[in-house]
Amino acid sequence: MTVIEQMGAKAKEAARILSVAGNKKNKALNAIADALIENADTIIKANNLDIENGKNNGLTPSLIDRLTLGKDRIEGMAYGVRKVATLPDPVGNVISGNTLPNGLTVTKVKVPLGVIGIIFEARPNVTADAAALCLKAGNAVILRGGKEAINSNKAISEIMRNAIEKAGLPKDSIQLITDTSRNSATELMQLSEYLDVLIPRGGAGLIKAVVENSKVPVIETGVGNCHVYVDKYADTDMAADIIFNAKTDRPSVCNAIETILIHKDVASEALPKIKEKLDTKNVQLRGCKITREILGNDVVEAEESDYYTEFLDYILACKVVESIDEAIAHISKYSSGHSECIVTKDYNSANTFTSQVDSAAVYVNTSTRFTDGGEFGLGAEIGISTQKLHARGPMGINELTSSKFIIEGNGQIR
Amino acid sequence: MTVIEQMGAKAKEAARILSVAGNKKNKALNAIADALIENADTIIKANNLDIENGKNNGLTPSLIDRLTLGKDRIEGMAYGVRKVATLPDPVGNVISGNTLPNGLTVTKVKVPLGVIGIIFEARPNVTADAAALCLKAGNAVILRGGKEAINSNKAISEIMRNAIEKAGLPKDSIQLITDTSRNSATELMQLSEYLDVLIPRGGAGLIKAVVENSKVPVIETGVGNCHVYVDKYADTDMAADIIFNAKTDRPSVCNAIETILIHKDVASEALPKIKEKLDTKNVQLRGCKITREILGNDVVEAEESDYYTEFLDYILACKVVESIDEAIAHISKYSSGHSECIVTKDYNSANTFTSQVDSAAVYVNTSTRFTDGGEFGLGAEIGISTQKLHARGPMGINELTSSKFIIEGNGQIR
Repeated sequence: MTVIEQMGAKAKEAARILSVAGNKKNKALNAIADALIENADTIIKANNLDIENGKNNGLTPSLIDRLTLGKDRIEGMAYGVRKVATLPDPVGNVISGNTLPNGLTVTKVKVPLGVIGIIFEARPNVTADAAALCLKAGNAVILRGGKEAINSNKAISEIMRNAIEKAGLPKDSIQLITDTSRNSATELMQLSEYLDVLIPRGGAGLIKAVVENSKVPVIETGVGNCHVYVDKYADTDMAADIIFNAKTDRPSVCNAIETILIHKDVASEALPKIKEKLDTKNVQLRGCKITREILGNDVVEAEESDYYTEFLDYILACKVVESIDEAIAHISKYSSGHSECIVTKDYNSANTFTSQVDSAAVYVNTSTRFTDGGEFGLGAEIGISTQKLHARGPMGINELTSSKFIIEGNGQIR
Repeated sequence: MTVIEQMGAKAKEAARILSVAGNKKNKALNAIADALIENADTIIKANNLDIENGKNNGLTPSLIDRLTLGKDRIEGMAYGVRKVATLPDPVGNVISGNTLPNGLTVTKVKVPLGVIGIIFEARPNVTADAAALCLKAGNAVILRGGKEAINSNKAISEIMRNAIEKAGLPKDSIQLITDTSRNSATELMQLSEYLDVLIPRGGAGLIKAVVENSKVPVIETGVGNCHVYVDKYADTDMAADIIFNAKTDRPSVCNAIETILIHKDVASEALPKIKEKLDTKNVQLRGCKITREILGNDVVEAEESDYYTEFLDYILACKVVESIDEAIAHISKYSSGHSECIVTKDYNSANTFTSQVDSAAVYVNTSTRFTDGGEFGLGAEIGISTQKLHARGPMGINELTSSKFIIEGNGQIR
């Protein structure tokens, strides 16, 4: 058995105990939160090592910022873990039930998924966030973080493991893979004997690699090529406000928009308003021919590839369309299926858009920035699924469960 | 674009129309049923070709039987399709909904999965069954059946496509891959741009190959290494009846049992009763040391590998265990996670078993043969999922749907 296979076997055994751990899980979560605060200095010391290595290896300032754990961020982590403890426990909830004509009772109940693998990049706070959510839903978790944060991840996971053990649950409920070579990620993707699901959290490259290479079922998360369509019947002031918010509030996140589609009948009214707002944040517009006729040639010409791109930056593609059908067809072709919005005052346009656009979150007259587990009231979020299997959109602890049928009888045979 | 990529693109376009087709789907299903009956002779003629080829290629009589479509089986197919039409349409059902503090309404609704790929083996009736279920849930389907049934599958799918078109829906809602080489299956497994899910239906070898090689999300179905555990507190007569039924009613199906586990305190009472019943159908027992001490050495000695095997035959492995914990640990190690049963009169034993055994269907005092979409009241079944992601246990049309969030506002920004 390799080291990672051994971790898989230990995780499966821990998962068996966690699946019936009930309220002990909350005790463990609160113990973890306490331990994170008590051991903040240890975490900061380990984190300083990572920051130093990062600077020596030429990480960009924004990556160094993501990596850095101050006292306040550690307190934030602990607060997040405590909040997860307060959420209702999904395990054991009855989903449906009935009595068959032969007297058998069939009950479908929520159960944990089992063993969850999480592959993530440079943010060490994911270690605590993700582990807490997995634990709450009764799952064991195997974490494999990026090499940039390895010292921080080691410190955080050791603190969590000790806290769990003190709370009377197996410390192997949370395990960290300390080998950060590509090999360890590859091996985790083959671990179908022990892993029930693998969730990649990070950039498009990581996610693509996991989806293409994993033998374990994957939940695809987070790539957001999102759109706002300004309908023929739009309030163009509202459209400009929504576009400005959805592009510039936080351009680096997946629910920010990357392309706007403008109905030709309102283009000459809407586009100048939109541009005026975007100019205050120096957003670069990349427009189609008609966009440039209306706004002038200081708008960069959009290439086909721009419509496929998740810029994650102060860049926005723009296309003038003939009809709502063209807008929907454009979204169907180029979108990653994350979040899309229509701005309209028309009842039919709104219904056409919400019924025909096939994305995880479809908005009417609202910023796409609301696609978020916290905003949607899930309590906390493990990621935003852009696939259609198992879960779609923001995923909370409910999405970290499976189900089983329990059938009770008194000797029935078929 | 390859032929299969073109099929993918056409399926995606058909799926867009099907997703909002409402009651037209039922019209199409009834038209399919009518057309299957009307064109029964065409199907039988094509089927005769397959049977002839099969005999020339030395297919076993049981495979020839599976392949054969008489008038009655075609009528059965048509009846099945009509029954699917009568089921309630899951698309558009509201799963949950709430209003956020900022006034946004968030509604989670059921939507079709989109494009479903199905890879199956020699049974041509799967073509109609599977296509009907996919269509009902608003999905386009790409079918790839085995070469043994290619003429039958071609005839059935052409009849269905024409019927769908006459009913006003795109004929590409159902497509059959006529290239039955290994290449076409491999290409389908890579078609992640167009396919939302791939469902293999067939033997363990096919399913393993698809799970290991597919880039498209897979639902794993049907491998059943199922167990009956006879508890210390069992009614041993009931145990013998349940074991006899679960093993011999239809040994070739996935919900038949393959291993029995007997508590040591009842072994000498239960085993002779069990053997006496099984002997009437010449079931070969493969037992552990204690089993053979009780029943004698004409019981074959069980090897470790027997406990991993889905015999699908009149063979049953048997092990005497020290405790319910040992039984649960055995199941955890060897089971495929399909269906397991405890026979007991004890309340605690029943609860321990149902809460700790991690399989799709967990039974108390009942034959495992009931794990079936029809028996559970799902109306019809696309397969029995043995994975934990998305669906677990018998899958009906509800399991062929995904969800999306619709968020309505009046200008909210974040």
